Parts: sequence; structure tokens; C-alpha cells
Amino acid sequence: MSKTHYFPKDASHFKWDVNNKPIVTIESGDTVIFETIEVTDNQLNPESTTESLTDFNWDRVYPLSGPVYIEGAEKGDTLAVEILDLQTRGWGWTAVLPGMGLLAEEFPDAYLRTFDLSDGEYIHFRDDIKIPIEPFLGTMGVCPANAVDQGIMPPGKFGGNIDTRQLTVGTTLYLPVEEVGALFSIGDGHASQGDGEVCGSALECPLYASLKFTLIKGKSIPSAQFQTKGPLTPKVNDKGFYGTSGVGPDLYKASQDALRAMIDHISESYNMTPVDAYLLSSLCVDLKISEVVNVGEFVVNAVLPLSIFKED
Amino acid sequence: MSKTHYFPKDASHFKWDVNNKPIVTIESGDTVIFETIEVTDNQLNPESTTESLTDFNWDRVYPLSGPVYIEGAEKGDTLAVEILDLQTRGWGWTAVLPGMGLLAEEFPDAYLRTFDLSDGEYIHFRDDIKIPIEPFLGTMGVCPANAVDQGIMPPGKFGGNIDTRQLTVGTTLYLPVEEVGALFSIGDGHASQGDGEVCGSALECPLYASLKFTLIKGKSIPSAQFQTKGPLTPKVNDKGFYGTSGVGPDLYKASQDALRAMIDHISESYNMTPVDAYLLSSLCVDLKISEVVNVGEFVVNAVLPLSIFKED
Repeated sequence: MSKTHYFPKDASHFKWDVNNKPIVTIESGDTVIFETIEVTDNQLNPESTTESLTDFNWDRVYPLSGPVYIEGAEKGDTLAVEILDLQTRGWGWTAVLPGMGLLAEEFPDAYLRTFDLSDGEYIHFRDDIKIPIEPFLGTMGVCPANAVDQGIMPPGKFGGNIDTRQLTVGTTLYLPVEEVGALFSIGDGHASQGDGEVCGSALECPLYASLKFTLIKGKSIPSAQFQTKGPLTPKVNDKGFYGTSGVGPDLYKASQDALRAMIDHISESYNMTPVDAYLLSSLCVDLKISEVVNVGEFVVNAVLPLSIFKED
Repeated sequence: MSKTHYFPKDASHFKWDVNNKPIVTIESGDTVIFETIEVTDNQLNPESTTESLTDFNWDRVYPLSGPVYIEGAEKGDTLAVEILDLQTRGWGWTAVLPGMGLLAEEFPDAYLRTFDLSDGEYIHFRDDIKIPIEPFLGTMGVCPANAVDQGIMPPGKFGGNIDTRQLTVGTTLYLPVEEVGALFSIGDGHASQGDGEVCGSALECPLYASLKFTLIKGKSIPSAQFQTKGPLTPKVNDKGFYGTSGVGPDLYKASQDALRAMIDHISESYNMTPVDAYLLSSLCVDLKISEVVNVGEFVVNAVLPLSIFKED
């Protein structure tokens, strides 16, 4: 019979490592309830300001809740993780962190904003701008093969910090098991994020999470896959979208150009500073590869949902 | 008073060139009705087979309807093109063309399929697979600055072959004017396409098009932009989506990996040859840049709408 496990609040690890001791051991079919730690390990709080970023300890970033050991899991299996529930826990932040983000050179200065998420439905970015809260875990992964003291920030075929915003409630994530027991961990809760996470931060927040695990023996997949239950942008479909393009032989530079044009568009159309437009883009603008086949000149579009802007 | 113009059927050009003689001259506010030519200039027809691709004349590819000269347009202005109506005209095709596509090395052989579009609502890819018809023009552009005998296939800041599937009925496209009169042209009609156009072809077809032009004097934009009226995937929102990922420092290679995993997934789950799964992906799978900020390890997801698969 399947069982529900409560993951202890204070257990966390900061590295992928095959030697991390499993905190909870479960069987296929079981559910685990987590209370995840915000991505800076509580170095930030609702009263933090930009100055709080100056004495930031990067060694404490990415506390993960895990590992969860799944009985019988081994290399060559697939672990299915059904996202039963996710809830925000009161507050969150987003920021420009120097050296990070798609436009790191144009936005070199630290800048932090915190948000009250107690509304439950929307982040109030400005009096006239509300972004839907659609929580997901930025980091969901199994332990990478042979990992020893491996940093959390770079994702991989094992999942990890994949920042895939479609991993909301109702979605099932599939991960290729690389080590015995799978050694699954989560963290880096996000209240909202656009495809791209362009400023380097999403709306970072602690989350409650309820996940159901199913082991698929002998099924091998090359890297993370997922299946959603419903539409991809259910809460912003009613007012149309604005798109800006970048064109060129390099998808990364085309992404930068599309984002620059979007920041200009938002700044001018909605009377916003460029850095706030950068943060706003990170929270709700989606990067799409429109074509990647036209003799080396590719198109990336940045797409903004217009329903976030309240009517006068 | 604004006027409607009927663009002559037999007028076309195969290059961007400032010396192309304007076929129709209009004023801001006018509408033009087009009957566009299929992208091979009718070298293919509903009875064509893969063999038809062997003696293909590439010089006749991309016949564009244009130029339309907009009175008063000059460098530094923006041309708004409202897409009032688009309709398919009976048939279309998609193909692997050797040397083209995101997986050109894995799919080296020519392969053509033609489709009856008279249903009007769906392309019947297989008895149990129907893809919504959502027509758009793959190529919509103004003449690039100083263009002489410039090929159509590569898009640019002037628009052109941007293959942006959000340019469906109701959307307004904005283009930066680069030459006096703007010299606007269209072609390369598509009945459906996913973000990426991964096999190198969309569902290529002749279209009827009705476009309304408005000149925005003195407004400058860096490259094409657009505004949609409604949701981005209105016809495939009801059955969920399946995603496959690619991870790595190069967005192009990550796109290839995501697509390879999607082709495997479709082939195995729906009993389809890999080449048909490749075509299917080109018609309805969207490439999303999920994150482009995690210390040089980026994530691209290929996302398949599940509503295309009919219930048993």
C-alpha cells in the first residue's frame, strides 16, 4: 500500500554527491510532503534590500531537500514525479545579481525586490501590474552519475536546476535514474517565471510541495521529460501577447536582442525603468525559438502576456 | 478615405532588391488583398511525390507578392501590418529537403508528403492525428536597406522569412522601414508550423491574404515586433502537452537534443517512423528556451500538444 512521508524541514544538502545520506526512503507509489527552503538558505527575508546582497554567501545558495531514496531504482530506469501540490509561503524576491543573467553586461549592479505573496493568486509587481502565481520547483533532479561535490546551479541530463516553468501542479516530470536509489532532491521554489528566466532570478520563494513517485523499470530516457495536464499559459490567455524579435546566426545573441527590444518596449509603453522591465521579463516573458533552419539566420521571439496590465 | 487594392496574381519577385518595381502603391490605412504563390512557385502540386524533388529549381523558390509601395514611408518609420484574413487554398506539402533542417545530418534523404486542406480546420496527418490549420505567412518583410539581388531565405531586422507562427489572423506585425516606400512583400504561406520549423519546411501552401497597412511616422524599432489579439495556442489547449529537453552550453545543440528526444518519444509512443515524427514536429512542436542563465548550461524544451491525437 502506498504511503505518505513527511520530509524533515531542517534537512538539506548543497551539492550533488553520491555520498549524501538518504533522508527518506520510499517505495514506488509513495508520496512525499516537503517544506522547501528558499534558494539563499534564508540569507534573504521579506525585509531585505539591495544592500543585503553585498555580503551574500554563495556557498549557502541552493539548499536542496533530499536525497529521497527510491527502493529498487537503478541506472536504466525512469523516475516519474507527479506534482500533486505546490504552495507559496508568504513572500518571495527577485533580483539582478552582478555577473548573472542574459544581459549581465548591461545590468552590472545588484538590485533586489521583495514581494508579498499572501494574495495567493497574483504577484503585485506594480499597482497596475499583476503577474499570476504559478509555482514550480526550479530544481528537481536525481543524483548525477558518480557525482562528488558537484555544484547545483548547472542542470544536466539528470534534471536538477532546469528551471522549466511548465512543472506546475498537475505535471509529471520524468527523470533518467543514474545512481542506485535515484537519490532525488528538490529546491529553488519559484512563484513565477517566464521561459528563459532572463535576469537570472525567478520569483524566488519557499514552497510547500507534495510529490508522488513512480518507478518505471527498464525504461530509459536521455534527459528530463514532462507531461502537463492542461494548457501552458492558462492564466494569461485572454488579452493577447506582444512579441519582440532577435535575428542572427547565434541563438544566444538573438535571445539577447529579443530581450533588449522587449525591455525597450516595456520601458516606453508602461513608463518603467529598464531594470524593472528586466525583472518583469524574467517573471513572465517567454523566449521562443521561432525558426532555427533558415540558412544560419535564426529568429528568437520574446513574448509578453498583456493580461498582466490592469485596465484603467 | 481608405481603399482596398487587389494585388495581381501573376506578379512576383525572387530577390530583395531596391530596384524591384512597385506593383501596387497605397496610402496608410489601405488594405491589400493577395493571392500568394506556394513557395516553390508551383513546381510542386497535390500529385507530387518525393521524386518530384530531384529536379527542383532552387532559383524559383520564394516567389514573393510585392513590392507594395506605401506613400510617405521612409527610414525611421514603422510599418504596422494588420492581418485581417488568411485562408488556405486546397492543398499543401511538407518535406525533408536534403541539407536543410535542424537534424540535416540524421535525415539526409528527400521525403515529401502532400495534404488535402479542404477540411479547413485540420490537417489529417494520419487517420488518428489531426493538426489544427492556423495559417500565417512565413515571409512578411520590407525591402532591406540597399538590397541588391539579396536572397529571400535568410530573414533579418527587416522581417522577411521570419517564420513566426504567431502571425495568424488578428495579429499586427510591426516592421522597421528601411527604404523609401517600405517596399513590402509577402509569401511562403504556411497552414501550420511549430516554433522552430524544425525539419526545414512548414505545411507549405498557397494562401489568400488580406492585410491592412498603417504607417507610424517617426517611430523606430530595432527589428520585427508583433501583437496578437488572443491566446497563442488556442486550438490545442485542452489535452495537455509533452515536453522533451536538451541541456548544454549551446542553444542550437540543445535544440537538436530536445528534438531528437521528441522524435524518439513520438516514434515509440505513436508507432511512427522517425522521419514522419520529424515532419510532425515541424508542424506542431514548439521549441522553448526554458533557461538561458545557469552558468553556461542552458535548457531547451520541445513541447508537443497532445490534443492532436484522436481518442480511440
